[in-house]
Amino acid sequence: MAIKRVGSQTVKLENPPAIISSHSIVGPKEGEGPLKAYFDLILEEDLWGTESWEKAESKIQEECIKGAINEAGLSTKDIDYLIAGDLLNQIIASGYSARQLGIPYFGLYGACSTMTESLSLGAMLMDGGFADKIVCATSSHFSTAERQFRFPLEYGNQRKMTAQWTVTGAGATLISPSGPGPYIKCITTGKIIDPGIKDAANMGAAMAPAAMDTLINHFKDTGRDPSYYDLIISGDLGYVGKDIVIDMMKKEGYDLSKNYTDCGVEIFDRSLQDTHAGGSGCGCSGSVFNGYIIKEMKKGKFNKVLLMSTGALHSTLITQQGESIPGIAHAVVIENKREG
Amino acid sequence: MAIKRVGSQTVKLENPPAIISSHSIVGPKEGEGPLKAYFDLILEEDLWGTESWEKAESKIQEECIKGAINEAGLSTKDIDYLIAGDLLNQIIASGYSARQLGIPYFGLYGACSTMTESLSLGAMLMDGGFADKIVCATSSHFSTAERQFRFPLEYGNQRKMTAQWTVTGAGATLISPSGPGPYIKCITTGKIIDPGIKDAANMGAAMAPAAMDTLINHFKDTGRDPSYYDLIISGDLGYVGKDIVIDMMKKEGYDLSKNYTDCGVEIFDRSLQDTHAGGSGCGCSGSVFNGYIIKEMKKGKFNKVLLMSTGALHSTLITQQGESIPGIAHAVVIENKREG
Repeated sequence: MAIKRVGSQTVKLENPPAIISSHSIVGPKEGEGPLKAYFDLILEEDLWGTESWEKAESKIQEECIKGAINEAGLSTKDIDYLIAGDLLNQIIASGYSARQLGIPYFGLYGACSTMTESLSLGAMLMDGGFADKIVCATSSHFSTAERQFRFPLEYGNQRKMTAQWTVTGAGATLISPSGPGPYIKCITTGKIIDPGIKDAANMGAAMAPAAMDTLINHFKDTGRDPSYYDLIISGDLGYVGKDIVIDMMKKEGYDLSKNYTDCGVEIFDRSLQDTHAGGSGCGCSGSVFNGYIIKEMKKGKFNKVLLMSTGALHSTLITQQGESIPGIAHAVVIENKREG
Repeated sequence: MAIKRVGSQTVKLENPPAIISSHSIVGPKEGEGPLKAYFDLILEEDLWGTESWEKAESKIQEECIKGAINEAGLSTKDIDYLIAGDLLNQIIASGYSARQLGIPYFGLYGACSTMTESLSLGAMLMDGGFADKIVCATSSHFSTAERQFRFPLEYGNQRKMTAQWTVTGAGATLISPSGPGPYIKCITTGKIIDPGIKDAANMGAAMAPAAMDTLINHFKDTGRDPSYYDLIISGDLGYVGKDIVIDMMKKEGYDLSKNYTDCGVEIFDRSLQDTHAGGSGCGCSGSVFNGYIIKEMKKGKFNKVLLMSTGALHSTLITQQGESIPGIAHAVVIENKREG
C-alpha cells in the first residue's frame, strides 16, 4: 500500500483528475482590478440583493458552485461530493450554500488555504475511485471578514500598511476522472508552522514560514526545483509575505525570482485600489485560480502550475488569550499534460 | 472509475482500513457517567492546568492524539495525515493541537458530525493508497461551547429541558491499511437537511431529519435493513432526537427499536447527572466511539456497528439573522470481520 506517496508530504495521483469546469464570482472592487476580464461574474454591489453580508457570501458561493455545474452541462444530482469551506465562524457561508444545493457535503476549515485543501481532498477521493464528479469550492467576503476578525466597518479604523484586503469572491472547481483537463497531478499537504506573530494585521508574515515549509518539502519530495513550473503562485501572502518567501527561499537555495507570484498581489492594483499589502481571504486564491489561472492554462500561457493556498488558523478569541497565529499552506500541481 | 460507489451516497472500501489504536479523554462529569470504565483518561478538572478552557480543549485533543499514536507504538513522524475538527470558531482546538504535533493536517468543520466526517475522509484516503497511517480526531468542551454558542457560564442561565450538555472530551482513531481491526468498511456521506428549527436549545430536533435521511439512504444504497447491525448509534441526538428518529423511521418502515441508541444518551446518567436531553458535542461520539464502542467490539459484544455522528451547522450570528439550523449526519460502518 501507500504506493502513491512521494517523500514525506507529497502524493502523486495515479489517474490525475481532470478539471472539467470552473467558475468564479467576485465583488465590485475585485471587478475593477487587473484580473477583471477573467471572472465569470462581477457583482454590482456586495449584498447581492440579500439582507446581510453573511447571506450574500453564502449566495455567492452557492451561485459559483451552480455556475461550475452548469458550465459542465450537469445538474446538482450528478455531483457525488461537495467539499467546501470559508472563513466564517462555523463556516456558515459553505453550510448554507450546501443546504441549498443538496449535495453530499464535507465541510472544511483551512482559513485561506481552503481552495487547495479542497482540491487536495477532492483529487484524492477521485483518484481513489470514490466519486465521478466532485465540486471543490470556497468563498470569502470583505465585509463578513472585517467584522468577524477585526472591527465593525462602521468603526472606520485605520488600516495598517501590512494589512491585506479580504477578497469578496468565490471559486468552484468541478473535477472528474476524465476530460480535456487541465489535470491535478500532485499534492503536497502542509504542516502547521507558527513563527510567533501576534499581529492579526500582518498575515503575510504569519503565513510565509508555512508557505516556505510546504515549498521546500514539495521540491525535496519531488526532486524538482522551481524552474519545473511555468507559474508558482501562493494563495494570499500579499506583498509582505511574498517578499519574505522570495528572500528566505533564496537563502535555502531556491530561486523564486522568475516565476513566482501571489494571488493577493495579482488581484488588486496596489497603486490605484488602496489595498495596502494586497488581497487575502479564501476567495482570493479561489477566484484567481478558477478565473485567471485555469483560463490562461487553457490558452497555453501556463502549462505547469504549482498553486499553494495559504491559511492563518487563529481566532480572535485565542489571539486575545495571548496566542500567536499559526500558518498552513497546501500545494497542488496542475498541468495541461496528463502523463509524466 | 467510481467502482467503489454503491447507490447515491455510499461507498464500500475495497481494502477496509484497520483501526490499529484509539484513545479517549474526558472531563470529570463524563468520568462520573455510565461509561467511565471505558475512557483512557478522566480529567480531575476541566482546565487541566491551562489558563483557559480553549487552551484546555486543545491540550485534551493533542494528548488524545498522542495517546492513540503511543498505543500503536508509533511516533508523530510516522503519521501521514491528521484529519481533525471541533466546534470552536476557526476550529482552534484542532489547529493549535495540530501545531504542536507537526503532522500534515486537514482541518474539518462538521460540528458534532466531525468524528465520522474525519473517519470517512481518512478511510477513503487510505483505501485510495495515499497514506499508511492516518489519525482521525475531534474534541469538544462544555465550557468553551457554552460561552461560544449560548451564554457565558457566569450568567447562570436556566437550561431548557430540550438542551443538551456538551461533552468535555476527545477521541482519536489511528488507521492503517493492515492490522487486527476492527475495520472501516462502508461510508454514507450526508446531505444537509434543515427542518426549519431556530431554537439552539433543541439540537436533537434540528439534527434528527438529517440523521433519518442518511440512515434511509444508507439502507437503500446497501440493500440492508437495521437488523444487519448489532449496534446503530447516532452521535448526539440525545433523548429528544433519538425518539424522533425512532418514531419517524418506523413510519418509513424501518424498525430501530431493538438495536439503536445515541452516544448522547449513553454517556450521562439522566436521573443523576442533570444533563436534560443528554450529551452533545464532537467529543461525545468521539469519546464514546474511541472508548466504549471500539473496546466492546474488541471483546466481541458488537461485531457490526453503524456509527453516525450528527452535526448542527449554524453559528450564533446567522441564527440571530433569522436563519434556521441545518443538520448533517455522516455514517460509517465498522465491523470486526474484514471480508464481506
